Amino acid sequence: MGGFNQAALLEAIRRGGGTVTRADLARVTGLSPQTVTNAVRRLLETGLVAEESVQRRAGAGPGRPGTTLDIVPDSKYAIGVHLDPATVVVVLLDLGGTVVATRSAPAPASEKPDDVLDVVAREVGAIVATSGVDVARVLGVGLATPGPIDRQRGLVLDPPHLTRWHDVPLRDEVARRTGFPTLLDKDVLAVAAAICWYPETGRPTDAAVVYVGTGVAMAVISGGEIVRGVSGNAGEAGHLSVGRPFGPCSCGREGCLGGVLSTGAILTNAGARGIHLAAATDEEVSPSLRADHAVDELGVLAGAGDAQALGFLNDMGEALGSAVVTVCQLLDLDTVVPSGPVWERLGPWLVPGLRRVLDGSPLPGHHAVRVLPTDQGINVAAVGAACLMLDDALTPKTTGLLLRV
Amino acid sequence: MGGFNQAALLEAIRRGGGTVTRADLARVTGLSPQTVTNAVRRLLETGLVAEESVQRRAGAGPGRPGTTLDIVPDSKYAIGVHLDPATVVVVLLDLGGTVVATRSAPAPASEKPDDVLDVVAREVGAIVATSGVDVARVLGVGLATPGPIDRQRGLVLDPPHLTRWHDVPLRDEVARRTGFPTLLDKDVLAVAAAICWYPETGRPTDAAVVYVGTGVAMAVISGGEIVRGVSGNAGEAGHLSVGRPFGPCSCGREGCLGGVLSTGAILTNAGARGIHLAAATDEEVSPSLRADHAVDELGVLAGAGDAQALGFLNDMGEALGSAVVTVCQLLDLDTVVPSGPVWERLGPWLVPGLRRVLDGSPLPGHHAVRVLPTDQGINVAAVGAACLMLDDALTPKTTGLLLRV
Repeated sequence: MGGFNQAALLEAIRRGGGTVTRADLARVTGLSPQTVTNAVRRLLETGLVAEESVQRRAGAGPGRPGTTLDIVPDSKYAIGVHLDPATVVVVLLDLGGTVVATRSAPAPASEKPDDVLDVVAREVGAIVATSGVDVARVLGVGLATPGPIDRQRGLVLDPPHLTRWHDVPLRDEVARRTGFPTLLDKDVLAVAAAICWYPETGRPTDAAVVYVGTGVAMAVISGGEIVRGVSGNAGEAGHLSVGRPFGPCSCGREGCLGGVLSTGAILTNAGARGIHLAAATDEEVSPSLRADHAVDELGVLAGAGDAQALGFLNDMGEALGSAVVTVCQLLDLDTVVPSGPVWERLGPWLVPGLRRVLDGSPLPGHHAVRVLPTDQGINVAAVGAACLMLDDALTPKTTGLLLRV
Repeated sequence: MGGFNQAALLEAIRRGGGTVTRADLARVTGLSPQTVTNAVRRLLETGLVAEESVQRRAGAGPGRPGTTLDIVPDSKYAIGVHLDPATVVVVLLDLGGTVVATRSAPAPASEKPDDVLDVVAREVGAIVATSGVDVARVLGVGLATPGPIDRQRGLVLDPPHLTRWHDVPLRDEVARRTGFPTLLDKDVLAVAAAICWYPETGRPTDAAVVYVGTGVAMAVISGGEIVRGVSGNAGEAGHLSVGRPFGPCSCGREGCLGGVLSTGAILTNAGARGIHLAAATDEEVSPSLRADHAVDELGVLAGAGDAQALGFLNDMGEALGSAVVTVCQLLDLDTVVPSGPVWERLGPWLVPGLRRVLDGSPLPGHHAVRVLPTDQGINVAAVGAACLMLDDALTPKTTGLLLRV
């Protein structure tokens, strides 16, 4: 189990943020000091980890001498790609999780898989070339795509917002065109991976990660693990109930979260409430851009104190709260992390309604549910995809320990 | 990690059902043959495991010789207790999971914690005494109780159906009165433990376990693990939406699962539909018994082909299906396991509606959702509580491997 031990130690060193000694590692992993010493020697040889004498560190007080270990951020990199129906976002992360470069390009209007693959390959090549990072240090590419996917075979099946896509072998095609090892995951699960990765979000162990964009999705983190589901397609939240009629959903009902929180639903529902948005009648642009512009306008109205817009946003926040409460009750979660391009623009006016419903609802175990922001902004899915690649290459996996007799 | 290896091997031997050789164990665990040999020797010494020469086994074909390993069922036992608001059920399981004894007693009408504890201690003592099992072979007591609980401190907080209970230290009191190590878990999570334990249910890895009794609850199994939640109180399903108005819920809404599938809701809704149930006007018994008798009557009507009763049950099955679909979409589950005292009596008439909604709904990843029965009947929560005790004593835990820097 040398590989497992080594990966476990690397993860512990990363989480320690430069404060961890070999003795700490032996304590937290339960491995023998000798095993730790041997594994750390191998990590030092690979250059992933470096050591520093405690005495040399600024602010170190008196005490027993020791040597702390930290990862070497520029020893390895990972690329993350978010394939949104409208945009291709590419980020380059170092081993410490710092975003060292970001690129984005409009998705080809044709929506043809081949054209999209060309854009992905071009942008991946460009981000490595322009950043000056040694190709040999790039671990690989993490892809975040709309579902449903076949995770095992690396296929994108037939996403509702990419109507020309059917069983596209995205993982293998990106690997072939870029030359990098590639993995594929669903967009909202990549977002959850970013939430789990960064200490800034407090690494919630039991959380609902809400992503609001062209559609609405919700990933669940349970016991510190992302819930992927039996086929890797967890996260469909469009038909969660918001507890009362709101706006029409594709399923024909009136009280689904998808009928509240998506760019299209926002455009439709604003019109039904008599909120005038210029984007609604803009025939010059595509329906998806029209809906996206409507979100911008609604944010401007709310920022200007428009009472109708504020009331609408309050109701949307409460509707989200109602859906989230149901999930918190079922899975005993204590954290909600909203994210996504719609949330980035409208979040400040959605939080109060969300907060009010969370506070006013019976939740299991008598603990509060906190609403956490994410610091990764609109690139969170691409960042998460890169985190998945780092995780895949470096994080301990217990799979080999699980018994499948 | 000797303890971990030993427990992992015991679990693999149990799951193998008497077919596993040392070579198989080395293969599935990734441990070295020498480590397996040493750990198995210790298991043989404890008497938990016995070996059998393959040549001696009936029906063994030709092939390389070997020695298979199996657990010794009567080497250890666990007691399971289900504390239902109406009944105390106690079971005794052997290490192989066979229920060797069952007892039940009415819960004291006073509902006072002290009186309930007296009944539990008396029944636990009686099941050991009358079964003739050596007390030294009893690993301990697993308690399944209504939530919310404080799992860490072993408290039952304030269950809605046990109005006189408030922060009752049930775990420690049962341990004190019986002398056995005791653990406490929420009733529906104990049911899920039973589903995970027995090979007969195919050990679903991603399932919704529905329990219908005085109330309705749903435990989720995700990636082979029971979702417990941040405070051990997962499973609250009463406010999952059934997609349309049905019957009144305690929250004031009309479309909650709790307003459809609970004994009280069934009594109320049957009346509202003009289905005459004699129990409805029986003033001789308590409201909870009245509702329970109504379930019996409804089953009799359905069995006799009463069209109104069948229509009502069909609608209830569809309502359950609607709630289950939402959860399957969110968590990408492929299995539903309904259980509990109401399901035991009405299940056959609820399945078609449930099945129809599952088949007619868009589910992630294009896979079907199967409806599995449980073989444990109305004692499933008590059996599950005993399984939890067996698991706690004997199953590998990776906790020691997880890093908490």
